Amino acid sequence: MIQAIDRAAKILAALQGSRHLGISDLGAVLDLPPSTVHGIVKSLQAHGLVVKEPHGQRYMLGPTLLQLSNVYLDTLDVRARAMRWTGDLAERTGLAVRMGVEFFSEVIVIHHEPRPDGTRQMPETGLTIPAHASALGKVLLAYHPAFKDSVVAKGPLRSLTAETITDVDELDKALSEVLATGWALEDEEAVLGESSIAVPVADRDGEAVAAIAVVMPASDSPIPETVLTLLREAARNVSRELGAPGWPPSVARTD
Amino acid sequence: MIQAIDRAAKILAALQGSRHLGISDLGAVLDLPPSTVHGIVKSLQAHGLVVKEPHGQRYMLGPTLLQLSNVYLDTLDVRARAMRWTGDLAERTGLAVRMGVEFFSEVIVIHHEPRPDGTRQMPETGLTIPAHASALGKVLLAYHPAFKDSVVAKGPLRSLTAETITDVDELDKALSEVLATGWALEDEEAVLGESSIAVPVADRDGEAVAAIAVVMPASDSPIPETVLTLLREAARNVSRELGAPGWPPSVARTD
Repeated sequence: MIQAIDRAAKILAALQGSRHLGISDLGAVLDLPPSTVHGIVKSLQAHGLVVKEPHGQRYMLGPTLLQLSNVYLDTLDVRARAMRWTGDLAERTGLAVRMGVEFFSEVIVIHHEPRPDGTRQMPETGLTIPAHASALGKVLLAYHPAFKDSVVAKGPLRSLTAETITDVDELDKALSEVLATGWALEDEEAVLGESSIAVPVADRDGEAVAAIAVVMPASDSPIPETVLTLLREAARNVSRELGAPGWPPSVARTD
Repeated sequence: MIQAIDRAAKILAALQGSRHLGISDLGAVLDLPPSTVHGIVKSLQAHGLVVKEPHGQRYMLGPTLLQLSNVYLDTLDVRARAMRWTGDLAERTGLAVRMGVEFFSEVIVIHHEPRPDGTRQMPETGLTIPAHASALGKVLLAYHPAFKDSVVAKGPLRSLTAETITDVDELDKALSEVLATGWALEDEEAVLGESSIAVPVADRDGEAVAAIAVVMPASDSPIPETVLTLLREAARNVSRELGAPGWPPSVARTD
């Protein structure tokens, strides 16, 4: 690990968490002298990765990140292949659709179709969600034992609502069920009033490369069979386009 | 400039341009030995800024950029204030709306409202466009002489279509007109069949902090007066919310 790059990445992460930070704030976060932080920030600023706030002396994340991120999204084969099917899925179910991939011990949303009811909804692409508290996450955890190990190794499972699974044995049980059925349910485990169902997308190695979820209002009624059928159909179609040998995917080897 | 960070930023830029590059490709681009490039790439990879491609040995931009970029967009006061007005503008004109800010010698789109006709349109947020060949750019160039100087200093104005302004005197004349009228027109100067009109957004210093444009099919007919009125109204409203003392903005001092 090159120290200067490690520190630069930590400065970006600190600004991601706190949005506006001065040189001395950053020094405190990184436990470094202000002069060192200043040199790193200036280097990041020269490349547009960081900018000075318009009316002050603090720093913020910069526009180059937007440009790079756009290219990141464009390079995702699974996203490009899924777009058409997720749009169709949102239209046919009347529900919002999310697609997510592993991101350290969380899930990052790489595509979001808003509920097709014409209302303005917050875009979710780029949001990270705890793996154990989401349907997308449960799917990825079930099909990637190494991912599950890293989430569990990171420490206690954080509670977001009264329904969040915080017990590892209970999570294991839930993940076995995911493998048995090929889909995961999350019912008010992350956000009150919201539930979601997710299924895996297989790539040409036959492994789960992403998960697709539909987001529904929470309710005690059973999951509409048609929604699950349409969701599965979408995931199968995306997987086929990616060259998957079958669906659902196989459990990834932990090497 | 810290050398390691400068190199890391150049690696990100190279991947932004070419999408998939191996260690030796990157070495060639940066004129560095593979071992040096390898160390930088590994450091970027540890932070999710770069990832290895799924089925190969080359590298691509990573998911952390998406997360950082999301926060970058959230920190933009002008964007947050504009959302409501640009949505309204798209609805009332039936046209696509773009908002852009300076980005080195180009313009970066920080917000995009698709044409409200229900068709699927490519999202434009994060795209960069040449300043001299866009209505957004002409507005920002006119109100920021230092930006214009940097664009002109960068070298010849690149021709994108037969209509692109490539002569500096002609550009100066166009920018004077922008200042005289408060709006800029671009007619098939970047993309055939497309034209756009832009106006500035003023911040609390009374300077142009961004520009808003409506995108129209190119045609020989005059610009609909109602579109220009609605566009101006939107920019005025966003500027007022930002605390601007007046509109249109004043020309920025070149210090």
